[in-house]
Amino acid sequence: MKRLVLEKKVLSENDRIAARLRAQFAEHGIYCLNFISSPGSGKTSLLERTLERMPPGRRVAVLTGDIQTDNDARRLARFGFPVKQITTAGACHLDASMIERALADWSLNDLDLLLIENVGNLVCPTSYDLGEHAKIVVLSVTEGEDKPLKYPATFHKASLMILNKTDLLPHVPFDWRLARSYAWEVHPTLEVILVSCLNGEGLGEWCEWLDRKCGESAVVAAGEASAR
Amino acid sequence: MKRLVLEKKVLSENDRIAARLRAQFAEHGIYCLNFISSPGSGKTSLLERTLERMPPGRRVAVLTGDIQTDNDARRLARFGFPVKQITTAGACHLDASMIERALADWSLNDLDLLLIENVGNLVCPTSYDLGEHAKIVVLSVTEGEDKPLKYPATFHKASLMILNKTDLLPHVPFDWRLARSYAWEVHPTLEVILVSCLNGEGLGEWCEWLDRKCGESAVVAAGEASAR
Repeated sequence: MKRLVLEKKVLSENDRIAARLRAQFAEHGIYCLNFISSPGSGKTSLLERTLERMPPGRRVAVLTGDIQTDNDARRLARFGFPVKQITTAGACHLDASMIERALADWSLNDLDLLLIENVGNLVCPTSYDLGEHAKIVVLSVTEGEDKPLKYPATFHKASLMILNKTDLLPHVPFDWRLARSYAWEVHPTLEVILVSCLNGEGLGEWCEWLDRKCGESAVVAAGEASAR
Repeated sequence: MKRLVLEKKVLSENDRIAARLRAQFAEHGIYCLNFISSPGSGKTSLLERTLERMPPGRRVAVLTGDIQTDNDARRLARFGFPVKQITTAGACHLDASMIERALADWSLNDLDLLLIENVGNLVCPTSYDLGEHAKIVVLSVTEGEDKPLKYPATFHKASLMILNKTDLLPHVPFDWRLARSYAWEVHPTLEVILVSCLNGEGLGEWCEWLDRKCGESAVVAAGEASAR
């Protein structure tokens, strides 16, 4: 019981910092996404394919979380955008204070888009608001159709499910329509895009989704600025 | 800081219950394994293939943990052995008290082998001793070679790594020798078995491992009983 009370306190402290981050993102017109998945679902590969398709002039940065190693940051830094690794040293999720510290020495005026790759974990990251505009859950077709039912909180809170590794569909007993219907049981308006980071399927649709969201966010930010 | 102190208290309470479980397993000559992996690495499939290959007379039972759903218990119950689902209702891992409660109405005298399938999570379950003789980490070949480096605690504490879904090796950019060498960086004496639950590769070797461990455990238990 004591533990529950303390966990609630930790979460409400996290929410306070997340609200501060959200206000900063609004002020600087930054659109922010929080990518959540199991280990090995392909978050880093998706970000690699996304960065190499960035339209000219898009000012994007990446924060990538892991318990150990800076492998992901090294993979992502090759595309020339600012990338920072957050090593959580045992913690199973990113929290808002880690994001705040990581952003402290970046000029937010120079950013339009912030992509946050969470620690590979389909459970704990969901509880920690990072001030993002939307969560994206990545599920790979090798993981079994029933994951949305087994980990409902993550699929409920996400705005978009990326169903990744579709190139493997011929080789795995995975019915993607069933996985989508399970996801819709948990979250009926969840958007779904099928993607293969290996053969490129669906990456155009995903980049259009991202462009559209950045555009909508910029319109909202401009409206708020003119109202001030 | 306060949180850290409380977490330590929770873990030491867990260790106390785990020690009690371990004593019970010893008393009743039960060999107990704790299976840990990412969501979708194939723990349930591995247990299905294991149960259908059980030698006659082996008295085995399964506890399977999930945040929601009893899908896994229903899959595993088809083989005629006692199976119980532990639904953690949000918790990202099994703990020793959950195991103790689940075992309360089973006669331990009727068991030789207890297989515990943890919640799909490569991080948190590792911290919670369940009184098991050994942890087994299941890694699938779709997850990327560097997972042992990114989640070192789990691979460090495991006695055996099952490298699952080897049937997909021709279709994924995964070098299993590299994954094994990363695992050995973290844990030089980690045993490794390559398995496909689809085409059966490696299942014989895995069942022999299990037989050997059950046999060794029975010899130890008999020695302890005669010394009493």
